Amino acid sequence: MVQVAPLRRTGRPLGATVPVIEIERKFLVAERPSDLEGWPSSAIEQGYLTVDQEGPEVRVRRRGGQAYLTVKSGGGRVRVEEEIEIDGDRFERLWPLTEGRRIEKTRYEIDAGDGVVIELDVYTGALDGLVTAEVEFDSEEAADAFEPPSWLGDDVTEDLRYKNQRLAREGPP
Amino acid sequence: MVQVAPLRRTGRPLGATVPVIEIERKFLVAERPSDLEGWPSSAIEQGYLTVDQEGPEVRVRRRGGQAYLTVKSGGGRVRVEEEIEIDGDRFERLWPLTEGRRIEKTRYEIDAGDGVVIELDVYTGALDGLVTAEVEFDSEEAADAFEPPSWLGDDVTEDLRYKNQRLAREGPP
Repeated sequence: MVQVAPLRRTGRPLGATVPVIEIERKFLVAERPSDLEGWPSSAIEQGYLTVDQEGPEVRVRRRGGQAYLTVKSGGGRVRVEEEIEIDGDRFERLWPLTEGRRIEKTRYEIDAGDGVVIELDVYTGALDGLVTAEVEFDSEEAADAFEPPSWLGDDVTEDLRYKNQRLAREGPP
Repeated sequence: MVQVAPLRRTGRPLGATVPVIEIERKFLVAERPSDLEGWPSSAIEQGYLTVDQEGPEVRVRRRGGQAYLTVKSGGGRVRVEEEIEIDGDRFERLWPLTEGRRIEKTRYEIDAGDGVVIELDVYTGALDGLVTAEVEFDSEEAADAFEPPSWLGDDVTEDLRYKNQRLAREGPP
């Protein structure tokens, strides 16, 4: 449930003594909320340029009007995450190189009260039919205390089959 | 000897009907010219982020004060070359991810007269001891007509062992 990310999402390195802790839970969605279309949403396209899973991961991602190329080391001694902003034309030219290794989804941001936002992802393309939801928390206590609304299904936080890269490469579990 | 590059080095795509033709020859260097240090030179560091040779090639490169991340498709139906300028700090953070897949060299630009520039590369690091030279031409006729100075050695233009990526991964032939 606790994922340690040594670098900020922006790609700026932190001092070695201040790791960023991301605390999030991931759920399947038993039933889409009836008011889903009323929440803000945006299309997300994410594709992997790297073919194998050894070595650094290189991916491109577009959400709304913004696109990024991200290089992320898999772990080990050197941990790196660099997010490079690219323009839409460049994204369009790189996208064909990710064929067969893509996630395409619409993300809805649902205000669940008490400062909790549920990010509900409706997948399209090769993952059509899959719906998941992620919730990020400020603390482990808040994550533990979270009572999922009835429309959320199984907690798959620890299920590796639902990791982004795995979904992109292997399709729906 | 003739290499067809469908995209400009800058990463801007061309219309499909106007391929760019790069015509260059590559030589070993039998003897370094005695006036070598008198020519302009710059350090080049180039490393591959991608571990295997399938799929697109992703590399970082720094020459003088400028650094780039380049994504290049290996061929096939979709051909892409995107060169993204990155700052020096980002280069420094990505460089450790290229360990074991690097080219480090000093490039000398030697004016050989008649508009011909010989780029002489003195490798360092894992390729220490290797010296090669490349000459680019405007036409096939000019390439054929080129009479190499006596200090140039074997023509290795067609020798795959001297391709950059191969040198980076496998070391000196």
